Parts: sequence; C-alpha cells; structure tokens
Amino acid sequence: MTKTVGEFLFDHLKAEGITEIFGVPGDFNFSLLDTLEDYDGIDLIDNRNELNAGYAADGYAQVKGLAALITTFGVGELSASNAIAGAYSENIPLVHIAGSPDLDAQEAGDHVHHTLMDGNFEVFRHMYEHITAYAVKVTKENAGTEIPKAIRIAKKKKKPVYLDFPIDQVTEPVGEVKAAEAVEETDEKSLEAAVDRAKVQLEEADQPVMLVDFNTLRFHLEPEVQSLAEALNVPVAQMMQGKGGFNEQHPQYIGMYGGAFGDPEVQKSVEAADCIIAVGMLWSDFNLSKYTAKLDTEKMIIIHPHSVEVAGEKYEGIHAADALEALQKSGNRREGEVETPPSIYDDTAGGPEEEIAAESYYPRFQRMLKKNDILVVDTGTLSYGMSQVKLPEGTTFISHGAWQSIGYGTPAALGASVAARDRRVLLFIGEGAFQFTAQELSTIIEKGYKPVIFLLNNQGYTIERYLNTDRPYAEYNDVPVWDYMSLVDTFSSVTEVFKARVTTNGALEEAIENAEDFNGPSVIELFVTDPMDAPLYLHNLREHAKDD
Amino acid sequence: MTKTVGEFLFDHLKAEGITEIFGVPGDFNFSLLDTLEDYDGIDLIDNRNELNAGYAADGYAQVKGLAALITTFGVGELSASNAIAGAYSENIPLVHIAGSPDLDAQEAGDHVHHTLMDGNFEVFRHMYEHITAYAVKVTKENAGTEIPKAIRIAKKKKKPVYLDFPIDQVTEPVGEVKAAEAVEETDEKSLEAAVDRAKVQLEEADQPVMLVDFNTLRFHLEPEVQSLAEALNVPVAQMMQGKGGFNEQHPQYIGMYGGAFGDPEVQKSVEAADCIIAVGMLWSDFNLSKYTAKLDTEKMIIIHPHSVEVAGEKYEGIHAADALEALQKSGNRREGEVETPPSIYDDTAGGPEEEIAAESYYPRFQRMLKKNDILVVDTGTLSYGMSQVKLPEGTTFISHGAWQSIGYGTPAALGASVAARDRRVLLFIGEGAFQFTAQELSTIIEKGYKPVIFLLNNQGYTIERYLNTDRPYAEYNDVPVWDYMSLVDTFSSVTEVFKARVTTNGALEEAIENAEDFNGPSVIELFVTDPMDAPLYLHNLREHAKDD
Repeated sequence: MTKTVGEFLFDHLKAEGITEIFGVPGDFNFSLLDTLEDYDGIDLIDNRNELNAGYAADGYAQVKGLAALITTFGVGELSASNAIAGAYSENIPLVHIAGSPDLDAQEAGDHVHHTLMDGNFEVFRHMYEHITAYAVKVTKENAGTEIPKAIRIAKKKKKPVYLDFPIDQVTEPVGEVKAAEAVEETDEKSLEAAVDRAKVQLEEADQPVMLVDFNTLRFHLEPEVQSLAEALNVPVAQMMQGKGGFNEQHPQYIGMYGGAFGDPEVQKSVEAADCIIAVGMLWSDFNLSKYTAKLDTEKMIIIHPHSVEVAGEKYEGIHAADALEALQKSGNRREGEVETPPSIYDDTAGGPEEEIAAESYYPRFQRMLKKNDILVVDTGTLSYGMSQVKLPEGTTFISHGAWQSIGYGTPAALGASVAARDRRVLLFIGEGAFQFTAQELSTIIEKGYKPVIFLLNNQGYTIERYLNTDRPYAEYNDVPVWDYMSLVDTFSSVTEVFKARVTTNGALEEAIENAEDFNGPSVIELFVTDPMDAPLYLHNLREHAKDD
Repeated sequence: MTKTVGEFLFDHLKAEGITEIFGVPGDFNFSLLDTLEDYDGIDLIDNRNELNAGYAADGYAQVKGLAALITTFGVGELSASNAIAGAYSENIPLVHIAGSPDLDAQEAGDHVHHTLMDGNFEVFRHMYEHITAYAVKVTKENAGTEIPKAIRIAKKKKKPVYLDFPIDQVTEPVGEVKAAEAVEETDEKSLEAAVDRAKVQLEEADQPVMLVDFNTLRFHLEPEVQSLAEALNVPVAQMMQGKGGFNEQHPQYIGMYGGAFGDPEVQKSVEAADCIIAVGMLWSDFNLSKYTAKLDTEKMIIIHPHSVEVAGEKYEGIHAADALEALQKSGNRREGEVETPPSIYDDTAGGPEEEIAAESYYPRFQRMLKKNDILVVDTGTLSYGMSQVKLPEGTTFISHGAWQSIGYGTPAALGASVAARDRRVLLFIGEGAFQFTAQELSTIIEKGYKPVIFLLNNQGYTIERYLNTDRPYAEYNDVPVWDYMSLVDTFSSVTEVFKARVTTNGALEEAIENAEDFNGPSVIELFVTDPMDAPLYLHNLREHAKDD
C-alpha cells in the first residue's frame, strides 16, 4: 500500500532515530497530529507554547543528533522562530514541520485566520528561508523528493530546515520517491596537501596545544579528536563553546581557555603554544572571551567540518573526520606527560552555615556531578560559571554560547530528558531566565521526567548588571518576586516533586542529597542575597569592560 | 541643545500620546533603556518575555491608538514576531524598537552573540519586512527623517513598523530633521461619484441595513458611523470582528451577524436587506462565519478606510470619515422605528446550585458588564460566546478575530490596564490559552493593575475539540492540570489578589460581587466539568463542519 505524505514523513524521521516529536496543536496541523497519533514508533510531546517546543527540540537534538517539531501556521511557527534561528546559530539540525491551510484556500488567496489578511500564504516560509538551510512547501507531488532532501540537508549542514504541509496534502498518497543523492567524499588531493603542510607545522613546534571547540560537538567528532590528541600526546584545552567536546578527566586535559577572564594557567599554555591544532573553531565574541583570546591563525591548524586551514591557508572539500584521522598518522608524537593544573573549583569553599555564593556553589556543583550526566545551562552568570566547572567523563553539556537566548534552559532540559530517559539531567538556570518559559516546567513534571533543576535566584538579571557596567542597578534589570515553591505546587497535581529553597551551603548539600534519593523531578532554589553574586570569570570581564 | 537619537525617538512617541513603552532588557538595548530611564513622561513596563511585550503593546494600542515596544537583537525581536505579525493582520499600529550591535561590529561582520554567526546583521530586519509596513535601520544621520516617517506610516496604515537602533547610535546627536509630508486629502471627484452612485442604491432600497465591521474600530470611525446610522435611521448590525464598533444599547442596534451560526433573527434581517452599508469590512473566515455569511457586493455600499465600493465598483482616494459624512447628507432617511430583537443572553439561565456551563455563564457575564468596561477576549470558545454578549455603552472590546493567536489575552489585558488605569479591564480566557503566556499575570499583579480575570477551565483546548470534528478527544487537545489558585499565590508576594475557583452559578455570582468589592487584581477560575461545554454558536458551527 502506498504511504500517505504524513506517514512517509514520519517513516523518514523514525529512520533517523527520532522517537518523539515536540509540538503544539492548531487547526492547520490536525492532519499531521492525527497521522502521528495513529503512527507506531513516534510519540508527540506536547509543549505549553511553540517557543518552548523549539527549545525542547534543540535540547533533544543535542542528545540524539536530530529533532523535529510540529507547529501550526503563522501564529505557531512565528512563536518558534527564535528557537529555530537559535538552532541555526548553534548548528543544531531540526526539522520544523508547519501545518498550513489547504491548497485550495491557498490558491484562492482566502482570508483565513492566522494569515496577514492579504491572501499571501508564502510569507512565513519566506521568513523562515532566512533562518533555515532549506524551506519548502510539501505537496503530494513533491513529498517523495523534498522530505528526504530536507532531512539530508539538516544532517549535513547541522542546521534547521522547514517543511510547510498544507493540511489536505498530509493524508494524500505520496508521489514519486527519488533515490538519495550520493554523499560527497573527501577530496584526497586537498587532504594530502593540507596534511603535508600541517606536518611541517607540527614538526617545527616545541609547544603544541590542541583546542577543542564548538563544531567538535555539533559534528560529533569527539572520538576522532580524542584519538588524535592521544596520538600526538599534546595538552588539550577547550574553548568555551567546545565544552563537552573533550573528556575533562583525560590525563592530557589542561582546562578551559577563557581568554583574559578564565584560568590564567590555561591562558599561559595556549598563548605560549607555537602550534595550535584547533577543531571546530567558532570565532564568536563569547567563545573568544570578548576578543581577549589571543589566537594567531599563522600558528594554527584548524579542522573545520568540511575544510582544513593551515597557517591561514584553506584546503576545501575535506571531511573533518578524515582530516583528524590523517593527522593521527602524521607521526608527530610529543614526548613526556602533560602537566594538568587543578580546576579552580576543585576546592570546596564556604562552611555549611555560610550563605551560598558563587565561590561556594560552583565547587559543590562540580562535586555533585556524575559520569554520563547531562547538564543544561541557560544563559546568564551560570553559563560563565559552569564553563569553569570540571566535568566527569561521558557528560553532555548543553548550552547556547552563540545565540544566548535566555529562557532556553527549561524547555531544553525537557528535550534532553525525553531524549535520554536513562541519564540524569541537571538544569542550571537563573530566575530571570526561568520566568521567560516557566510553563514548560509543567510539562516536565506532568510527564514525570526527573531532571534536577537548580534555580539560581539572584534577584534580577545579574548578567545584565555585569554587562551594563554604568548602571548595575537599573530598574529594568529587576524581575518580579515569585514564590517558586508555590509554582512547583501549581504544576504538581499529578506527580510528586522534590522541592527545596536553600540559602546556606549546608542546606544546598542536603538538598542535593535529597534530590538524589528522591529520584523524581526536583527543584532546588538557590536564594542568593547579593544581586551582584557571580563567578570570577564575570568579575574579570566586568573589570575589562569598565576599562574599555 | 541637540537631542540624541534616543531622546528624539521618545519625543515623537510622547507627542503621539504614548506614556508607557513595553519591553524586555537585553545588552543591545541598554542605550535605549538608559535613555528611557532618564526621560520624563514615558515609563518602561517590563514584560516577562518579548512575545508578551508584543501582545501587551497590541492591547495598549487598541485603547490608546498607538503603542511601542523595545526588544533586543535576534533573540528578543524574533520572540515578538508572532505578536507583530498579529498586529499586521489585525491592523494595529505598533512601533517595534529593536536594539542591535554597534555599527562598527555590524560593518566588520563580527560574530557577536544573538547573530546567526554568519556576519549578517540585516537578516532579522529582512524578516520583519514581511510583517511590518516599514522596516529600517536608524542611524544618527537618518533618524531625523526615518523616525517621524515610520510613525506616520504606522498611523496611516494602522500597521506595525520596525526600527532597528544600533546601540551606539542612540546616544548620538540626531542629524537633520525633515519636515513632515503633507497628509493626502480625499479626492473630491472620486467622492462625489461614489456618493452619487450610493444615493441611487439607497433610494431604491426598501430594507437597508448597516453593517459595522473591523476597520470601523481600527480607523476610529465609531462617531461617524453612529452619525450616519442616525441620519439614515437604518437598523445596524455588527460583524463579529466589528464588535465594539457600534453602541449595542443604541435603539437602532439589532445584533451580531454570525452567518448561519449566530442569531437567526439578525441573519434574516441582514440577508433580506436590499442595500447594505458596510463600514470597514473584512472578508475573513471568522468574520464570515466560515463563509456561511451571505453578502452580495452588488447590493452593498462598502466604506473602506481609503476607498468606497458601490455595487462592486471601487472609488479610490477617499477617506472613510469623508465618505461617511457625505453619505449622511444624502437625504435618504428611513421612516419608523427600528425593531430590536432581544439578545440571546438576556435571560439568566441556570439556578445557583447548578454547575456552570456556557448557557449559564454567558448571561451572567452580560449582566455584570458596566459602561466603559474594557473586555479582552482570548481566542477559543470564549471568542465565539462573548461575541454574542450584549455590551453596555462605551465598552471597548479587544479580541483577535483575524490572527487568533491563543495566549494573546493575558498580556493584552496588561496592556489595556496600563493604557486605561481608570477603567475596569475584564479578561476572558480559556486555561489552554492561558498556559501559553501565564507568566504575564505576574506583571499584572506585581504592578498592581486591577483586571478581573475569568479563567475558563474546560479541561483542554475545547475550541480544537470543536474544529477537529472527527477526534474531539484526541490526546493532543489535553493540557496539564494546573492549580491556578496556587499560581496566583506564586505571583502575589507584593500585591494581594482576590482569587476564587467556582463550579456553580451561585458561586460565580458571589465571586463576581467579591471581585467588584475587592477593587484589585482578581482571578476567577470557572471550572467546567464537560470538556465539550461551548456556546450555541460553536454547536452550530460544529454541525455545519460535520456536514462538509
């Protein structure tokens, strides 16, 4: 029997390992949701709004490699646009499935609801063309080509793609199915030239260093990166947005490079290096610690996802995995053991009766972490602080250093929880950020996912207080006072939740233990009395910004 | 002293009567917010997220005629895009002010946060070009021209406009200021021709009717419409999206025309009319009751905002107010009194001990209303039911019949409350919709606004259950169970709130009285046991859809 367009879509997503799709119902996606309800092997996770669905899909994709969400026309898809642009910025492959009015209404230019009342049904897709790698209207005629093509592009480019399904097309039999295009292989000549050049760099180097960054994570190059590091026996540092790309317990790992604001020992090692092998570099302001990072491309061998750059010269058409493998065989093995400095949060500061503060809770976070934990870190003081915490082996670190949309964390923690039911998910989020998307905590609790949520209540947008150095106490950086424990009660009609509000180090330790014993959704509010409480990294950044 | 770009902007907004601006801080709008903090006469109302800021601005504009919001680059502005597209669809003039990175960074194509990491700083403005009437990057050189121009376009077209302010430009002295363009006058010849033709139509008519619609509200034509109705002494009906455009207590008012689903008496009168004077018509699916409305343009005189259409022939270049005035003088006064049928909710059904249901709470809503109330009605069963409730004189009815984005109501009620502190604001919203933007209740409460919120808890997206006739009980139409009284507690740290959860008619009446005595923010949850509880209009619509 011929599949319908909807079944064909879900078959292709299932083949990619997708077992859940996020989304919000609306009357133009009924045929998609009805097909999904009858479909075996993929469940709908319904979100509280579409922005949250987009963020949840992003969190899911960071664990499983690909995610999908379903929204309705106009109102739904635009609400998700921030999350989709975020996925574009952050190199996260998502399939955004939007349901739209039936083709007859579209062709007639009817003034149906959820339109701009101008008969134009292309406007939202045109908007999406700016923030996706591919955007197309799917009909029964083109579904056989366009659905596989869109998924292929998302996977190759690690970008979101957008598929608009007129409601009446979903239940139609799918038309001709085209065979997939062959995957492009690495250009062997280009690879050889790049490796020859890189070898010379490596041979001449006395103090080489490896830097693991952003696209190591996005293109899943962690195993190849570790093999290369071990073959070369060089010290390895991570860039801020590469966190999670290298095992921080590895004997060659020296720490996080945070330009002038991070660990001075790591800074010294990286900046003194005469050859840097950098994998998946992103030259962003966050990653480069407000451009205080000093990296000379003349000294660098940079492995990009689809090219290699040596001393500023670019070699195209090379898959990163092939480049990493070829460099392994370069024979430039360094002698001796790597010296690994201690992490700044190795020592637990602050007594049990003392009030919690950045210098006391980050060490406790570090101590609490376990192998294979998934950490979701929202933008704010926590994204700077958590970047300096040393992670156990096998952890996944989910954060948005490029897009930095606050409020991302709670839905992303839902997405990660859905993607990995057997792993512990920990969410670190400030209360200002939390308020943006607070309702998604309801979905987490209602469906019985078990993340431990650390809600840092530092009385406002502390990160903004740091960035606007002239006016740390501007009124607009205040947020309303919420009773977060009462909010947990609001959402706990069906599922029991462990909740605690802590103000001292001892209480924090106890809450962490209790949450562990509880083995269910847990919310721990860290109430900090100083609105300027922040990790050392941010103090450094602020001093630097003041001098500007 | 020369004004800065920021001061110049706020001067122009203040001159339009804007005394509050909505928004959310972000590091690329600091210079805008700092300028505003120092500026006399406009306050910032900070929202819980940008979508809510957009909705709040919309509600404010529906009371005060124009509104503004401030967001940050990328993350902030995209989150607001659903609300801005909604304002476009609904003809609401908004000024969307977005703060962006400094011009140097833009020109260098730096990979700063909140970008797509591709050096392109134009992408979000290009997206906004699709959903605004004007979108421009403002610099010190062009501010003197562009700011007044954008505001002028928003006011004339009743559409949102978009101004992108690079953060460093806001504090620069504003450049050359150009004189405003002259407003286009009505084309007198065109007007004369239209009125001559209309007169013939009117003279030949035995049963003329006036229809008041959408753009009557948006272009503030209510006084002229009433004068014309009185001059012609014709029966007046409203279209669904024109609700609030005509005084429903007026002796010529016959009711709401809801095609085959609304009041049959009104349907008969409108469909039997041999001449229909329609003001501000919008031919949308909602307005035309799924196209069951039978309106023959050959019999119609349609007053558009900038043109007149008589029997299908269009006369361009005519301001609606001029057309309405000219028609008043046509001399076609009808004789006799207009017969006004009773409203379907005039009788209070259901005893005090009985469970609340649509047939019992709509009459009680109608009875409770007072002169000059502002009603905000979210999309859902309530937007259909409330359309049939007869309003007192002077009420403002805020709803989105075209865009229909659920969750709009709570932030819009905030916006209306800010715009009219001396008027009572009533919000009618279903719990499914409420969950989308629930955090904005926090802003309402924290700032001490006093709306009365009717939260209809009908256990899911009841409207979707009606629209998807095949699967009313699809799982995706369920929403999590929340304890709404506990949510109110979450937000009430600073302000006391009246709250009640009612299940019977008597308890609803008591809660309404108590909320009135309380004179502060009030939340009344109406818990309805039947998930298919809905007004008669929707039952009719569902029967019709089943037959399709």
